[in-house]
Amino acid sequence: MAKTQVIPVIMSGGAGSRLWPASRKSRPKQLLPLASQQTMIQETALRLQHQGNAYSFADPMIVCNHANADAIAKQLGEIGISASTMITEPVARNTAPCAVIAALAILAESSDRSPEPLMLLAPADHHIKNTTEFRRVVGQAVPAARSGHMVTFGITVTKPETGYGYIQKGAKLDDHAHRVAGFKEKPDLDTAKTYMASGNYFWNAGIFMCKPSSLLAEMRQHSPEILQACQRAFDASPQSSGQSAGQTIALDADTFARCPAISIDYALMERTNKACVVEAHMGWSDIGSWSALLELTKDMSGNALKGDVHILDTKNCLIHSDGPFVATIGIDNLAVVVHDGAVLIANLDQVQDVKKIVDELTRRRDKDRL
Amino acid sequence: MAKTQVIPVIMSGGAGSRLWPASRKSRPKQLLPLASQQTMIQETALRLQHQGNAYSFADPMIVCNHANADAIAKQLGEIGISASTMITEPVARNTAPCAVIAALAILAESSDRSPEPLMLLAPADHHIKNTTEFRRVVGQAVPAARSGHMVTFGITVTKPETGYGYIQKGAKLDDHAHRVAGFKEKPDLDTAKTYMASGNYFWNAGIFMCKPSSLLAEMRQHSPEILQACQRAFDASPQSSGQSAGQTIALDADTFARCPAISIDYALMERTNKACVVEAHMGWSDIGSWSALLELTKDMSGNALKGDVHILDTKNCLIHSDGPFVATIGIDNLAVVVHDGAVLIANLDQVQDVKKIVDELTRRRDKDRL
Repeated sequence: MAKTQVIPVIMSGGAGSRLWPASRKSRPKQLLPLASQQTMIQETALRLQHQGNAYSFADPMIVCNHANADAIAKQLGEIGISASTMITEPVARNTAPCAVIAALAILAESSDRSPEPLMLLAPADHHIKNTTEFRRVVGQAVPAARSGHMVTFGITVTKPETGYGYIQKGAKLDDHAHRVAGFKEKPDLDTAKTYMASGNYFWNAGIFMCKPSSLLAEMRQHSPEILQACQRAFDASPQSSGQSAGQTIALDADTFARCPAISIDYALMERTNKACVVEAHMGWSDIGSWSALLELTKDMSGNALKGDVHILDTKNCLIHSDGPFVATIGIDNLAVVVHDGAVLIANLDQVQDVKKIVDELTRRRDKDRL
Repeated sequence: MAKTQVIPVIMSGGAGSRLWPASRKSRPKQLLPLASQQTMIQETALRLQHQGNAYSFADPMIVCNHANADAIAKQLGEIGISASTMITEPVARNTAPCAVIAALAILAESSDRSPEPLMLLAPADHHIKNTTEFRRVVGQAVPAARSGHMVTFGITVTKPETGYGYIQKGAKLDDHAHRVAGFKEKPDLDTAKTYMASGNYFWNAGIFMCKPSSLLAEMRQHSPEILQACQRAFDASPQSSGQSAGQTIALDADTFARCPAISIDYALMERTNKACVVEAHMGWSDIGSWSALLELTKDMSGNALKGDVHILDTKNCLIHSDGPFVATIGIDNLAVVVHDGAVLIANLDQVQDVKKIVDELTRRRDKDRL
């Protein structure tokens, strides 16, 4: 059997507004160095570099907002990676159109290739501590994906988290994959505890692997109108080759705007009977809030400090500054983030309300702070 | 009896480092608008404008660090006040040399004037809510001062404050003045409660009134070496008339540096038997910390907000910004001050430790943040 090629499709369309004020429209979460010295998309692209026995990653395909394309290409260039294709979105349309158009683009490029490459859909802004384990479970998912299944990676539950969706494990499919018995919305705490105790649930990390042709076939069966809208947008969009190796597909504004904004979970994974799950225990975090980042990066005193910070009697705090000197005295359980003309001081138990601040700035049309 | 002239001597040599990061070397506390739209020295100078039946204030004399003289003259100009004399200090030497040199300067100017004017020594950085009452008690103090006493204004105690020195009331001198039975250092809480319950104690606000000749005579008796050092510095210092009305006395660096750095309280008030006190109930605050400023300026929710601030679920907080947008979520009892490239977040019960931050910056020789 020929070695499988896996084409990473890095989904970089998100805004990450829960990490305001570091995250801005022109510099969304995936472009920030949050968990390490590298930006999230750099971490992601490096994780997706691998030439193994079971499979090889190809150069990545990037799907992003057109406003961020140059910044992303620059960041990838800094780590010696060039995208095979940049697909730029004029507006945000969630993950289903992104996945479908990536599949169309891959098949247009590699229709003559055998075997058909797999596509790995991965968010650009997640942290995975154990890269070796990630690459190993991708290999474990290859047989299921090659046999026409839509593989999702289920993260081992380590606490009764109420902020994530869950995947319920069903019947065994092969050595590593199980069928998906169901997708569950964010549960309340009691339900989350039940899920965790049962051992039959995983966190849904939004990472998927499948054949592009399988994805399109399943879309045709379960969400034909979305497939059709995406096909129209793809056909209407000009493709160009850049000065560097890759090509750019600038999605046509009119036709892409008509694609429904819907996630691949809703549009396909919850409807198809081809969904399966491979368990991954790899130190995953979506860094969905300042408290999640503190958990990931805290030192022995429970603090995570970045920039010119001087603390007195301070514990369990995340304190980041992109320049100004920050001094703290006698504080506990706070996020303090100073970034580009804006300052956030938030109780870490209420960091979900950062979105309300962003909403207020949006209402004000305060472009400088968005 | 001819109407008494009172020459305000505004002591503006302090740094006010407890209000860092708003207060800096080049822009000390008295140059900041803290309790109102006016800066503290503007508030002080306006308070000291009065033509009454019992006395009249003359144009003020300013004693300040030479580095701040231009800024002070500019701020006074903004409110239509010009100093009669600017005495500039090359180094800080506390209040005794300041008071002595001011007395020498007044006598040099007005040796032929009869009756001798009084001098009113007032810190530039205190807030007094009730200006009318202040001016009234100054009038009440005139007879004692004219009869050769050193009058101090004793603030009515309204809480058992441990951060101030206290003045103990002695025998009655006239309708308004009592002799001082003793000066007390900052007490512990139990002692402060005893002071408050007795009704015989006042807060020492550091505001004094006397004849310049009395001050010099008492200094000659109780601190002759300080008087001598100050006389040498005064004699060695060039006086010049500026383009505006007033004159400038630039204190000679060598001789002034040899004056001991000591307060007028220690050098004179605690030693002389001419000290007396006039009670003043006028809404006085030295704004000695961010928590004191919050007490003075808080709204119904217990917050004092200044600048571009957006709060959610926030109470009992002082939040000041000189530019950057500040958003807070779920915080209580904090000072948040964003000023000129520095950010302070401090528990309001520990604001005295702001000094430790300034000490750290001094150790680092971080001129940009001092």
